[in-house]
Amino acid sequence: MSKIRAAVVGYGNIGQFTVQALEAAEDFEIAGVVRRRIGDIPAELASYKVVTDIRDLAHVDVAILCTPTREVEKYALEYLALGINTVDSFDIHTSILDLRRSLGEAARKAGKVAVISAGWDPGSDSIVRTLMQAAAPKGLTYTNFGPGMSMGHTVCVKSKPGVKNALSMTMPKGDGMHRRMVYVELEQGAKLEDVARAVKDDPYFSSDETHVMAVDSVDAVKDMGHGVHMVRKGVSGRTQNQRFEFNMSINNPALTAQLLVGVARASMRLAPGAYTMIEIPVIDLLPGDREQLISHLV
Amino acid sequence: MSKIRAAVVGYGNIGQFTVQALEAAEDFEIAGVVRRRIGDIPAELASYKVVTDIRDLAHVDVAILCTPTREVEKYALEYLALGINTVDSFDIHTSILDLRRSLGEAARKAGKVAVISAGWDPGSDSIVRTLMQAAAPKGLTYTNFGPGMSMGHTVCVKSKPGVKNALSMTMPKGDGMHRRMVYVELEQGAKLEDVARAVKDDPYFSSDETHVMAVDSVDAVKDMGHGVHMVRKGVSGRTQNQRFEFNMSINNPALTAQLLVGVARASMRLAPGAYTMIEIPVIDLLPGDREQLISHLV
Repeated sequence: MSKIRAAVVGYGNIGQFTVQALEAAEDFEIAGVVRRRIGDIPAELASYKVVTDIRDLAHVDVAILCTPTREVEKYALEYLALGINTVDSFDIHTSILDLRRSLGEAARKAGKVAVISAGWDPGSDSIVRTLMQAAAPKGLTYTNFGPGMSMGHTVCVKSKPGVKNALSMTMPKGDGMHRRMVYVELEQGAKLEDVARAVKDDPYFSSDETHVMAVDSVDAVKDMGHGVHMVRKGVSGRTQNQRFEFNMSINNPALTAQLLVGVARASMRLAPGAYTMIEIPVIDLLPGDREQLISHLV
Repeated sequence: MSKIRAAVVGYGNIGQFTVQALEAAEDFEIAGVVRRRIGDIPAELASYKVVTDIRDLAHVDVAILCTPTREVEKYALEYLALGINTVDSFDIHTSILDLRRSLGEAARKAGKVAVISAGWDPGSDSIVRTLMQAAAPKGLTYTNFGPGMSMGHTVCVKSKPGVKNALSMTMPKGDGMHRRMVYVELEQGAKLEDVARAVKDDPYFSSDETHVMAVDSVDAVKDMGHGVHMVRKGVSGRTQNQRFEFNMSINNPALTAQLLVGVARASMRLAPGAYTMIEIPVIDLLPGDREQLISHLV
């Protein structure tokens, strides 16, 4: 059977873990890595083609977009028009429907598939949330994140004047409430109280309990572990008090990358269009014979 | 929008909870209930048509089979040939593929849909198991059941000579191992040790730690709650030690019935054929506008 040829677009954290996940997947081969600039090529990419334009790679079935979230749409539209499936981990919740419409139109026009907002949240958590709601349609689901680093909040803190480096940790307080623990390396002469005020006034932080602390080295306190604790108590039919709980403790970019590879695989089976993960049968995330999967997993 | 017309076939525990779940679902109407014999009609069915033959009901979109598992195939083949979708909670793991082939052929011939082995295990647990494997492809998943009543094991005990009534409880010992606690009401003159030997020698029980006890009244110790504790520790890409956990504490027939209603709804959207739950997008289990669901759940 011929392998699925995937291009990795962007080579930050997610891109690096995506290469690892593709190397571990027997049904894939890496068509190449697309980077903005080709400078020093890291040792682990020595055996791969590294290019600045995806058209310089031999046939690509699917592009795994590991770019910043705001660049996803631009790349996806370009690649879909070239006849390449795209998958991404777009995570701006309020814009997911717009992206689904825009990529859906482009994908159908090209006869290709885009899977959007794939990763763990949005992504695999969304599947669990949907399943819990199907199991007990009336009720409340709380998704508690952490302890773990929030990428979006960290980028926000880094943008504040006087901040050299930053880490924003998300701490679960329960019932979907969170505390933000922010660690900053200050620039020469910058005052912690000014930075703290700028952070707490930002819409990213203003509705959560937020603590801002100076540290000598952000790198020394940073790890990429993360966690989720999701709970639902609800009603099945007329029966109250049905309880469901999902927990995980994971390396954040490693899990995101693994799920991106799963939806890249699924993209090869889907009809043209754009999909979120809750619109894809979970079996399509896995390699191998369908009947064998059913007999092991059902 | 026109409602989905469902027939409930069989009116034991699952059938009764299915009527409740359908009554709570605004997008369904109950076409009627099919029973083997029409004797005394229970008060809660007074407003519904109760028949012995589904052809005596006005148009039926989908038949929800709440019959014993071994009768599922017979009814499903008959109803698919009549142009009616079927859903069931068939739970003999070793025969799921055979049923999927047999109903798949009949469904495609009729241009209809069969969703098989839908409930919580097999069913929603299967979706979580598949998702966990996609998130960390290398590793081990343990599904721990209970504490709760096992229907299959209870039926097995009831079939033994000298047993008037029985309850087999599944108790989790961890790591997917289980203890069976069996409570029996003995017939006059029957000896507990004979019953215990017959139970422990049965293939249903022979590989598990099993305790058989006599009680005055099985009804007095029976409840329909059940539980699941599923864990996976595995590898995403090259990253070890990714941990996932799913727990639930539920009323067994209420959850089964709710999920049967969910797949009955999904059956209206699927292409002709037979499906297990891992082959269905979870969004299709829910009623309502697709974009609205995506914006709330993704």
